Amino acid sequence: MLPPTSVDLSGDRFSVIYRLTGSEAEARGKADDICIEQTIEFPADLVPDDDIRRQIFGRIESFRPLDGGAFEAVISYAVEISGFELSQLLNVVFGNISLKPGIRVERLALPDSLLQAFKGPRFGRDGWRELLNAPRRPLLCSALKPMGLSAAALAEMAYKFALGGVDLIKDDHGLANQSFSPFKERVERCVEAIDRANRESGHHCAYIPNITGPANELTERAIFAKETGAGAIMAAPGLIGLDSVRMLADDDRINLPIMSHPAFQGSYITSPDNGFSHFALYGQVSRLAGADATVYPNWGGRFSFSKEECASIVAGTAAPLGQLQPIFPAPGGGMTMKRVPEMLDVYGRDVIFLMGGGLHKHGPDLIENCRHFRQLVEKM
Amino acid sequence: MLPPTSVDLSGDRFSVIYRLTGSEAEARGKADDICIEQTIEFPADLVPDDDIRRQIFGRIESFRPLDGGAFEAVISYAVEISGFELSQLLNVVFGNISLKPGIRVERLALPDSLLQAFKGPRFGRDGWRELLNAPRRPLLCSALKPMGLSAAALAEMAYKFALGGVDLIKDDHGLANQSFSPFKERVERCVEAIDRANRESGHHCAYIPNITGPANELTERAIFAKETGAGAIMAAPGLIGLDSVRMLADDDRINLPIMSHPAFQGSYITSPDNGFSHFALYGQVSRLAGADATVYPNWGGRFSFSKEECASIVAGTAAPLGQLQPIFPAPGGGMTMKRVPEMLDVYGRDVIFLMGGGLHKHGPDLIENCRHFRQLVEKM
Repeated sequence: MLPPTSVDLSGDRFSVIYRLTGSEAEARGKADDICIEQTIEFPADLVPDDDIRRQIFGRIESFRPLDGGAFEAVISYAVEISGFELSQLLNVVFGNISLKPGIRVERLALPDSLLQAFKGPRFGRDGWRELLNAPRRPLLCSALKPMGLSAAALAEMAYKFALGGVDLIKDDHGLANQSFSPFKERVERCVEAIDRANRESGHHCAYIPNITGPANELTERAIFAKETGAGAIMAAPGLIGLDSVRMLADDDRINLPIMSHPAFQGSYITSPDNGFSHFALYGQVSRLAGADATVYPNWGGRFSFSKEECASIVAGTAAPLGQLQPIFPAPGGGMTMKRVPEMLDVYGRDVIFLMGGGLHKHGPDLIENCRHFRQLVEKM
Repeated sequence: MLPPTSVDLSGDRFSVIYRLTGSEAEARGKADDICIEQTIEFPADLVPDDDIRRQIFGRIESFRPLDGGAFEAVISYAVEISGFELSQLLNVVFGNISLKPGIRVERLALPDSLLQAFKGPRFGRDGWRELLNAPRRPLLCSALKPMGLSAAALAEMAYKFALGGVDLIKDDHGLANQSFSPFKERVERCVEAIDRANRESGHHCAYIPNITGPANELTERAIFAKETGAGAIMAAPGLIGLDSVRMLADDDRINLPIMSHPAFQGSYITSPDNGFSHFALYGQVSRLAGADATVYPNWGGRFSFSKEECASIVAGTAAPLGQLQPIFPAPGGGMTMKRVPEMLDVYGRDVIFLMGGGLHKHGPDLIENCRHFRQLVEKM
C-alpha cells in the first residue's frame, strides 16, 4: 500500500470518446481498464482511496451501445495529467492502449483550460487564402514528382504549374535530401521558377517544400525554406512526430503555413477497431499539432477511404476546438480532372484540391492542363 | 511524357519483405502497386523507359504464397532513394502504403552501404552490462509510479528499489513534466536517492528518466538527465518520432543508453494485415533508431502479444544488422514474480525483466520483494 498523498488539482477534466468492441461485458472491461492503463498503470487495489484515486484515475462518464454492435465510452481525465504538452496529452489519450486491439479514439472533447496550452494552426484557412489572394474559391495544389528528376527538372515543372494557375506546388513527399535532388538546391530552384512564373502571370502561387528529415535538421530546413522564399512547408507527422509539427508551427522564425502529410501514419486509421477515427486524427489532432492543412487520400482514388470518412475529416477540420482555427482538408491520391465537379459538390469551396499525376495525364500540355483545372474551380 | 533524365546510382539496393493479403492476383497487384507508390508515386506510363524506370522504381525480387493464405513479396529499392536518412528510409519502407490495408512489413534486408549511414545503438547489450556491472545475468528493471505521487515520494520508492537490488529504475512512461512531479525535480531527487542506496548496498543501480516531451525540449531534458547523473534515458518513439530517438542516440553530449517505450506505437502491430511485424518494429527499426533496449508487453500479461511474437522480438534484437549492436528486449506489462522462472526459460540471460506493480504486490516490504526478485534471477 502506498503512503497517503496530497494531490490538489483544478477539477477541470478533458474527455476522450472511445469506440470499444466485444460483448457488453468485454467493452465495459476495456473501459475500466483504460481508466487505469492510461493513468496510474498500477494495481488499483494498492492505491488507497485518496487523492490519486479521485483525481488521477480516468473516469467513465458514460457508456452506451452503438449501432453495429460496438460500444462507446466517454472517459475523462484531469487536465493536469497532460502536463499541458502535446506528447503527454496524446500519451494519455492513446499511449499504452494503442497496443490493445478493439479500442479506437473517436473524438476528443477538450476544455479551454487545456486548449489554451496550444497555439494550434498559425494560419488556418484564412491565412492560406490571404497568402494566395484567393478569398473564396477552392485552392489548387499539385506535386513535384517523380522522384529521380533533378532539381532543375522539378523547377521547370514548377514553373509550368505556376504559370497555369495552380495555387500551391508541393514537393512529392518522397523528395527529401537525395543526391539527385538535394533539398537546398531544390528549394532555391523551385522558388526562383515560381517567382518568375508569378511575375509573368500575376498569380500568387506558393511553393511548399517537404522538410521531413532528420529530427535535428527540421528547424534548419524550415528556416532555410522561409529565408529562400518558400510560401509554406510540408511535413509528415507519422515520420517526425506530431509534436515536431507543433514545434515548427510555434517557431516565430519559420512563420509559414504547414501542410501535414499522412505518410507512415496510416496504421492508425486502417482498422475500425484500433487507432483513431478520421475525424480525430486528420481533424482534431492535426489542428492540435498546428497543421494548417491536412493531406489525406480522397475516396475513389488509389486508396480505400470512403466518402463518409472523407466527410468526417472535413468536419474535423472545422469543428469547434477552443481558439484553434479551422484548417483546410487537402484530399489527393489518384485524383483526376473529371472528378473535380463531383468533389466540388461534396467539399464545397473550403478545400485544397491536390492533383499530381492527373494533371499530367489530362493532355499533352502541362500548362494548359493547369489552366483547365483552374477554370473548373473558378466556374463554381 | 517526361523529358529523358540521367540518374546514375550505385546499383546497391535494399529490400523489404512484405506480407500481402488477398487472392494471388490481388497480392500481386499490391506488390506492383508498392513498387510505384513507395517511389515515383506517378503514372508509370508517363515515365519513359529510362533511368528512372530502371533505377528508381521498386522491383519485385520474389513473390510466393505463405502458409495460411497470405503472400510474401520481396521488393528492392535503390539505397540512394533513402537519402541515407532514417525518416526517408522509413518513408520508402512504409510511408504511403501505411494507408492501405493488407500490407505488412515483415523484415528489412539492408546492405552495408546503407547501414553505414546509421550508428545504431551506442551502448547495446554489452554497454548496459558494463554500466551495471552485471556481465552475465538477466537485468532487473522496475518503474516509478503511480502518476500523482510527488517527486519526493517517487524518490523514496526509487531508494527502496535500488537498495533491494533492482538494476534499473525507470520512470513510468506517464511521468512527463506534470505539476505534481516536475521533470527536473524528479530527476534530481531520484538520482540522489539511488546514489545513496548504491553507496549503502554496493550495487550499481541506474535511473532512467522519461524524457518524452516537447520536440524542442528533448535534447535539453536528455542533457539535464546526463548532467544530473541519470544512468540512461527513456523515450517513446511513437510520440516523439523514431528519428528523434536516433538524434538523441547520436548526440555526444548525451552519451546515455536509451530505452525505447512502445506507447502510441501499438497501432503498427495490432493487426496482422497492416503495419510491421514485431520482429521488424521492436527489433530492426528500434536498432536503426539507436535504442539500446526495447520495451514491449510480455505474453500472458495485460496485453495480447503471443509467446511466439515475443520470441520474434528477441530474434530481432540480435539478428545480424551490419555493424549495429544487439540490444536488450525488455518485456513488461503485468509481469509478476512467479512468472520469472518461466520467462527465464524463454528469454535466457540476455533480457531486461521489467516488473512494476508486481513488485509491490509480492509482499508488504518493497525492499524485500526486490531482494527476492534479484535472488530469483541470480539462481539461474
